[in-house]
Amino acid sequence: MDGPVPPHPSQARGEPPDGAEPRRHPTGSNEQPAAGFSRRRLLGALGIGTAGVLAGGAAGGALGRATADPAPAGAPAAATDPVPFTGEHQAGIVTPAQDRLHFVALDVTTDSRDELIQLLRDWTAAARRMTAGQDAGPGGAVPDGAYDVPQDTGEAIGLPPAGLTITVGFGPTLFTSADGVDRFGLAARRPGPLVELPAFPGDQIDPAISGGDLCIQACANDPQVAVHAIRNLVRLGAGVVSVRWSQLGFGRTSSTSTGQATPRNLFGFKDGTDNLKAENASTLERFVWVGDEDAEGGRAAWLRGGSYLVARRIRMLIEPWDSSTLNEQEATIGRAKGSGAPLGQREEFDPVDFTARVDGEFAIPETSHVFLAHPTNAGTAILRRGYSFVDGTDGLGRLDAGLFFIAFQRDPATGFVQVQRNLRTDAMNEYVRHTSSAVFACPPGVRDDADWWGRALFEG
Amino acid sequence: MDGPVPPHPSQARGEPPDGAEPRRHPTGSNEQPAAGFSRRRLLGALGIGTAGVLAGGAAGGALGRATADPAPAGAPAAATDPVPFTGEHQAGIVTPAQDRLHFVALDVTTDSRDELIQLLRDWTAAARRMTAGQDAGPGGAVPDGAYDVPQDTGEAIGLPPAGLTITVGFGPTLFTSADGVDRFGLAARRPGPLVELPAFPGDQIDPAISGGDLCIQACANDPQVAVHAIRNLVRLGAGVVSVRWSQLGFGRTSSTSTGQATPRNLFGFKDGTDNLKAENASTLERFVWVGDEDAEGGRAAWLRGGSYLVARRIRMLIEPWDSSTLNEQEATIGRAKGSGAPLGQREEFDPVDFTARVDGEFAIPETSHVFLAHPTNAGTAILRRGYSFVDGTDGLGRLDAGLFFIAFQRDPATGFVQVQRNLRTDAMNEYVRHTSSAVFACPPGVRDDADWWGRALFEG
Repeated sequence: MDGPVPPHPSQARGEPPDGAEPRRHPTGSNEQPAAGFSRRRLLGALGIGTAGVLAGGAAGGALGRATADPAPAGAPAAATDPVPFTGEHQAGIVTPAQDRLHFVALDVTTDSRDELIQLLRDWTAAARRMTAGQDAGPGGAVPDGAYDVPQDTGEAIGLPPAGLTITVGFGPTLFTSADGVDRFGLAARRPGPLVELPAFPGDQIDPAISGGDLCIQACANDPQVAVHAIRNLVRLGAGVVSVRWSQLGFGRTSSTSTGQATPRNLFGFKDGTDNLKAENASTLERFVWVGDEDAEGGRAAWLRGGSYLVARRIRMLIEPWDSSTLNEQEATIGRAKGSGAPLGQREEFDPVDFTARVDGEFAIPETSHVFLAHPTNAGTAILRRGYSFVDGTDGLGRLDAGLFFIAFQRDPATGFVQVQRNLRTDAMNEYVRHTSSAVFACPPGVRDDADWWGRALFEG
Repeated sequence: MDGPVPPHPSQARGEPPDGAEPRRHPTGSNEQPAAGFSRRRLLGALGIGTAGVLAGGAAGGALGRATADPAPAGAPAAATDPVPFTGEHQAGIVTPAQDRLHFVALDVTTDSRDELIQLLRDWTAAARRMTAGQDAGPGGAVPDGAYDVPQDTGEAIGLPPAGLTITVGFGPTLFTSADGVDRFGLAARRPGPLVELPAFPGDQIDPAISGGDLCIQACANDPQVAVHAIRNLVRLGAGVVSVRWSQLGFGRTSSTSTGQATPRNLFGFKDGTDNLKAENASTLERFVWVGDEDAEGGRAAWLRGGSYLVARRIRMLIEPWDSSTLNEQEATIGRAKGSGAPLGQREEFDPVDFTARVDGEFAIPETSHVFLAHPTNAGTAILRRGYSFVDGTDGLGRLDAGLFFIAFQRDPATGFVQVQRNLRTDAMNEYVRHTSSAVFACPPGVRDDADWWGRALFEG
């Protein structure tokens, strides 16, 4: 964190980061790409990981596996172990992605700054306890006095910490309400990048499951532990906040650590192969963490060490996807379905090579998700941390299923927004619909016993 | 299955089954109960297990733990292992309850009996494969031909069987449609007990998430495995069936085997302590499996060895519950929150004793769930196999969470309906709302390679 930081991607928007020449596939052609495909000259393996929004992500395999940075603090030894709560950054961002998610967005229903601050203090104390495997409050689920109201709801009694992380974010409307009111005296401290995401072509956003003044992301390896955490935090907020929307995710769709096997998303493809990884500290500094130079003259200094969370509920159109051929699916993603290898390569972690050809044609189509989301072409990278969901049916006899996409980045404009704009011609668009959208600024980690979420925002 | 069967509970409705005198708590009083509480004279530990609908269920601890029947076939050695697909009964009923659920109800959209039969054959073949950890179809997720449509959707590639069970049921409307049409020539084979459940006081049933011509219950220890199974079966049914509603459950709320630890439901209480258990074959014969004497002169002979599945989506009113005192919660359930012991006792598996007193008062209130759901008072027993759910929010800032209740019984009238009617004065009613309702007849198990779900119904 204290070393030199590479240029922020906003200074080079649209330009790919520098990188070494990629390793070519042993059986691939080394001939020059055909003229007219200017973007194909910007080859893979840039040393910055990936920016993919969905399956397969992008290239950067050389980064994902080869960088030798030490393992991140907080990586649990077993799925039942605790993840440390305090630290420079909030847990739940580069923490190796746990298996299950409960995400909630809330609106603040009070106009009292003091009540809001007290809630953030209470949440911090409860999260500190629950992530250690304790009850939400010191009185526990079974108080000494029979006529006391329990301080914990009890469904996690006897369960291990299960890698629980609780990550809090502040939405744009916390700083200035939708009708322009500065309810909490925070308007002057809103970071410039913290604005609602723009509309994208094809969006089918439902406002009822979008936005929010606050968010809480709870991840754990046991869904009961994640649900318990959200439920108890919501309970602590009674009279101060109201749940706006929430989302359960049953299975992680990204790896965020080199030690994790790559999961498959509901398209049946490996997802997150070349995601940014926790082990690559210098890349995280560049693309995930808000730095000193983002302080905007002090206005946003409170966010140093934090990150921006973008959430998109992406409905997958399961039925047409399941009716398509293997060829169509692989051409849409840009990877092989079985191995997860980039098309034209052999192994999952082989680097993406946009010059590789099969039968004279480029192996990775220009409209594939991997091609368009690749840092080479998107010019940036994001840390994906999404989860698969099934939310019943849609009333037309189809499963309402998909990906609850979560990404962390240093700036939404040069992170998700830049990637998503580049996906305009993505063949995958035929099979997905974005139905919710939200952005939050996640403050830095809680440093010590006296610290609390957002303290630097309110007191700094 | 071939031994003598005790009287069917329908012959003794309202009468408690015979049973041994219960073991009293070592420190409890052995004095006679006060006059005027006639039902209190019907003591616990009846040797038939429990009938409870929600937390704590009922008594019968002496059954749940003490019966020495051999372990049931199919109990997996590890959470990743397969459960045998074929057998006298369908798996997923007395199989030790797996951690995760995906349940789907479907309507048949064709009027072709042949298409329906073909689908049941296809489903059987696919289920046989998937429960063994294989792809849904022999062509797999990655077909040899690039222009082939994959026979499996792929998201379970590399995952173990994870204890997957797939259980199929037939709803009343499969036999006679809601408008009285006998679409498939099955009306004459509808078992008498297979009728829609009656309305109960307080019901808030939403027809859109109730009923269905068919149901599939997929349980597994990995949610991705359960979701994959349902998704691939639904896919096989394209053009023949349409998903009517579905439900995910993230955590089991009942033990169905003496080897399982008792989980906690979203009220924070241990649930399923005294559930019917797989190890108690004679009790299962009496209360769960349809027997020879239920054949109705041959009309329902196809269902011998099957069972009736009742599903109720029970919304829990989390916020008022979380505002209540420990005393109120324990008096509502009839058990101690911490230990799970029946009130007046010390340990979870101590038998329920309705004569136990604390400070001169009966320890277990007459309006408690345990009191009313107890076989002594309900006069019957059911096998519960429910799952906790969280389905987002309700638009009023509250979590839409609760219990997706599933119970298996030999006859809904003398099973769930009888228990539920007895819960009219249940103190728990203040905290729950039933929002969906369905009943299905689950045929017996698939016997061999030539057999398929429902064969005896269509060909018998």
